[in-house]
Amino acid sequence: MSISMYQASIPVFARALANLSGILKKAADHAEQHKIDPSVLLAMRLYPNMFALTRQVQIATDLANGGGARLAGLERPVHEDTETSFEQLQARIEKTLAFLKSIKPEQIDGSEEKAITLTIGGNEMHFTGLPYLLHFVLPNLFFHTATAYDILRHGGVALGKQDFIGGV
Amino acid sequence: MSISMYQASIPVFARALANLSGILKKAADHAEQHKIDPSVLLAMRLYPNMFALTRQVQIATDLANGGGARLAGLERPVHEDTETSFEQLQARIEKTLAFLKSIKPEQIDGSEEKAITLTIGGNEMHFTGLPYLLHFVLPNLFFHTATAYDILRHGGVALGKQDFIGGV
Repeated sequence: MSISMYQASIPVFARALANLSGILKKAADHAEQHKIDPSVLLAMRLYPNMFALTRQVQIATDLANGGGARLAGLERPVHEDTETSFEQLQARIEKTLAFLKSIKPEQIDGSEEKAITLTIGGNEMHFTGLPYLLHFVLPNLFFHTATAYDILRHGGVALGKQDFIGGV
Repeated sequence: MSISMYQASIPVFARALANLSGILKKAADHAEQHKIDPSVLLAMRLYPNMFALTRQVQIATDLANGGGARLAGLERPVHEDTETSFEQLQARIEKTLAFLKSIKPEQIDGSEEKAITLTIGGNEMHFTGLPYLLHFVLPNLFFHTATAYDILRHGGVALGKQDFIGGV
């Protein structure tokens, strides 16, 4: 018995993004209920040189798209990063979930030692599939979804950890 | 080829906690440098009904201890939750890392379908090993380490995502 690369990637990404979608839905409802301009929440950040909520969501979807595509050897769906509303962020998450759903276990399984190269900040980073998934994509994805949650909690949206963990 | 339960658990937990330790070290240095009472940072939280920094660190270590112990069928190390300084939190992380290091791959491997029962808020939750690890322990652990990071960034400590991801 063991875990497949698919089990440790696509369903974990999908759940993190589905939970993020629910969190953003609560944030949009909160804005409406309290007559808060949604763009105020979307532009919130925890410190002047941290990314705002919109960017956290964009990066979280990029990580899931990039993770799935690179492990499966597919082209990475690219978004234009032009979202300015909760609806547009939800559409981006929905597209990402549809892409993840289109990936079959046999496309991911066996990618443990696949060579993966990323260019981050002009620097090339070389991984193999397993550490790329476990030590790069997963912590990174949860970092951005948790920070989105933290921004909204800080902004007064009533959320609980169950919204982040989901479905347990 | 596939991933073992050990690979997807102990080294991932250990890296998250080692990074958390580095983040707390920077926070303690920041406090000293700027003449901030460390207890102010330790008591910081992002919203009145969220946990403060100290509690985030306590829970993160509990998740790693509990995750490792339950998957391996060992007794879970219990801490008294009495830490009031960065040094004491570092000692707690160090003890947790030593416990994780004491767990051998063969104690964890094969735990994919192991029955695991948790009592949370008075409710019993039943898992098998694989979803317990991938959909409960990992997101939860990263939730608390990311929130600790976010609290400190919000408090003005100079950190970057590399401090959270570490070693890549």
